Amino acid sequence: MNDIFAKHAALKAARESLAALSPRDPFALTIERPISATVGVIEGRETLLFGTNNYLGLSQSPRAIEAAAETVRAEGVGTTGSRIANGTYALHRELERRLARTFRRKHCMTFSTGYQANLGAISALAGKDDYLLLDADSHASIYDGSRLSQAQVIRFRHNDPDDLDRRLRRLSDTPGARLVVVEGIYSMTGNIAPMREFAEVKKRHGAWLLADEAHSFGVLGENGRGVAEAQDCEADVDFVVGTFSKSLGTVGGYLVSDHDGIDTVRLCSRPYMFTASLPPEVIAATLATLDELESRPELRTTLMDNAARLHAGLRTAGLVTGSHVSPVVAVTLQDVPQALAFWNALVEAGVYVNLSLPPATPDQNPLLRCSVMAAHTPDQIDRAVAAFKTIGAQLGVSKLAA
Amino acid sequence: MNDIFAKHAALKAARESLAALSPRDPFALTIERPISATVGVIEGRETLLFGTNNYLGLSQSPRAIEAAAETVRAEGVGTTGSRIANGTYALHRELERRLARTFRRKHCMTFSTGYQANLGAISALAGKDDYLLLDADSHASIYDGSRLSQAQVIRFRHNDPDDLDRRLRRLSDTPGARLVVVEGIYSMTGNIAPMREFAEVKKRHGAWLLADEAHSFGVLGENGRGVAEAQDCEADVDFVVGTFSKSLGTVGGYLVSDHDGIDTVRLCSRPYMFTASLPPEVIAATLATLDELESRPELRTTLMDNAARLHAGLRTAGLVTGSHVSPVVAVTLQDVPQALAFWNALVEAGVYVNLSLPPATPDQNPLLRCSVMAAHTPDQIDRAVAAFKTIGAQLGVSKLAA
Repeated sequence: MNDIFAKHAALKAARESLAALSPRDPFALTIERPISATVGVIEGRETLLFGTNNYLGLSQSPRAIEAAAETVRAEGVGTTGSRIANGTYALHRELERRLARTFRRKHCMTFSTGYQANLGAISALAGKDDYLLLDADSHASIYDGSRLSQAQVIRFRHNDPDDLDRRLRRLSDTPGARLVVVEGIYSMTGNIAPMREFAEVKKRHGAWLLADEAHSFGVLGENGRGVAEAQDCEADVDFVVGTFSKSLGTVGGYLVSDHDGIDTVRLCSRPYMFTASLPPEVIAATLATLDELESRPELRTTLMDNAARLHAGLRTAGLVTGSHVSPVVAVTLQDVPQALAFWNALVEAGVYVNLSLPPATPDQNPLLRCSVMAAHTPDQIDRAVAAFKTIGAQLGVSKLAA
Repeated sequence: MNDIFAKHAALKAARESLAALSPRDPFALTIERPISATVGVIEGRETLLFGTNNYLGLSQSPRAIEAAAETVRAEGVGTTGSRIANGTYALHRELERRLARTFRRKHCMTFSTGYQANLGAISALAGKDDYLLLDADSHASIYDGSRLSQAQVIRFRHNDPDDLDRRLRRLSDTPGARLVVVEGIYSMTGNIAPMREFAEVKKRHGAWLLADEAHSFGVLGENGRGVAEAQDCEADVDFVVGTFSKSLGTVGGYLVSDHDGIDTVRLCSRPYMFTASLPPEVIAATLATLDELESRPELRTTLMDNAARLHAGLRTAGLVTGSHVSPVVAVTLQDVPQALAFWNALVEAGVYVNLSLPPATPDQNPLLRCSVMAAHTPDQIDRAVAAFKTIGAQLGVSKLAA
């Protein structure tokens, strides 16, 4: 009997060597319960949450909570069916209409997760004779969707429209559609895509452009529609994919577009067709948080103020961060033992951030991924920065910035 | 600009020809709202639901509804994080412990959808040097997980252990693990896998066996653990995958196993790692319906009584059905126009069933997929059968059985 787990031996060994360096498993932390959007109980202690995707704090929206409680009583805890069978309730249609209106697009499809939105959009839009041009730092769901599509995958350098331009030029005599996939804000680093430049390149080559605004919807743009709105190039973005599990605080995903071909995508997107639809109460909560996202633009102002405060604070503390000011601020560390020590010390000081280790990080350095919310108070941000500063000094990290 | 939608032209044309034959789109029906587990409002009319996966009727469980309402108030509408970052709450761990105990297995991983459970299990367990042996009638999520895995895929004839045996024998000198994937109950036809025979074959060849009990958990077996329990071969099933969106009435999926290698699967299963975890209220509702599934074995007795009543009724009405008595009963029709006419007439008579058209059906005939629930009354079943009988006679279908 060939050991089916033998292929995981290197990963298992890596995990065991991490365990020797870390008093707690960084990939198995439990939040015992959330107390508010910004505070959760971890290891029995109230802990500041600086490692979520809850940018607007809406996972704890009282309106969304009441909408969910009311709807679960009226409609039950699930649909037990897919969107193309018994899983489309009036609420699912309402959310699709609302999202289409929010994005000022004709069509919207919702998916049961954001992961499945990328799988479902990319695998249905790109066929085996097509080319997918992916930013090298793309999210796993974009790579997985590309594999499902059977299209030829070409990676271009992260956030580099010139590199995309060169690669599209090389394809100029090849048949097949070209679909360019970029993200609005990159989840690990907070880097923001030069969307307008990408749009110019795609137009020059007759390509199609899909923007994953998962981390930028509700965050950037005057109306929160993301990087394409902020850079005034929405008309040149053919497809927008996003998720409910960041600024909207729930779970699920969507695809919006003006192209009428979306009607047929509903009948060939397997990750849309072959999965149970979202429970009614999740849809109701999402409608409520979408209302808040639109009716409370001050949430975005506060969020960006908080982003600037955290970014400046970490830099002043002598830490190495990216240059983009966005709700995600990644602190780059030198090596894995240092990153583990730093992350553990932060947890012990009552500050939770995400730890990201190579090979999962873009540039092979370990990262402490910090994210802010509109719900953070300036005092909470200052306390997190103080913890970073103290621990950075103890571990001799801050000199890195020199 | 190459039209990215050109590849969908045949599907679009097929849809348009369906529209000419059908007053309503069979793949875009809306349930305006559910009234109970068995009745929903469709086109303004109270409609009997005979096309769901809500086998135990638990989507409307009052206990689950109260658990969801209480938990959403305590913990909010979402986690905004993946299981390996900030998306593991105490509730997620509790559900994993509970499911492991239910299945008497050491390990359980939960996923955000059942679709992602198959993707996540299969793509992580089967590597590029391995072989996946799939029942030819496998669900889309099994095929999609296989594509993500990069393993060599070999299909064997549906429910045919001898064919599996032959194909495994041909591999006898080849390196790499062999993972056999079968379902407990097949969702379209209600066919039940000969699991014990499959288990014998896999043992003979030193292969591994994964059983997808999505449609059989809560339905078959003395304790509802599915086909493997019913056929007394659980010890030979290495991995069980399932979903929360059938008998448990919510949304999500799981993988259970006694193999300790599962601990490492958590760190390489991309559909587990790179998606937001389920909202707390969905987990709480699932814990509540799992309690009911275990503490109310009479639900299974009623379900199987109802299955027998529907199966016998449809056969007596002169319709062609499969031979297995399970909660899914598929009525085979001759051609697409007949199937569309039959399905539309049922909807107009206040009976909703699932319509399945070739090429999506196993044997290239159109199917009316009917499913029963423990919650159906004998009278509701008799009314549905009467509608089938009347419409079958009007359309000249019932002679098929002669």
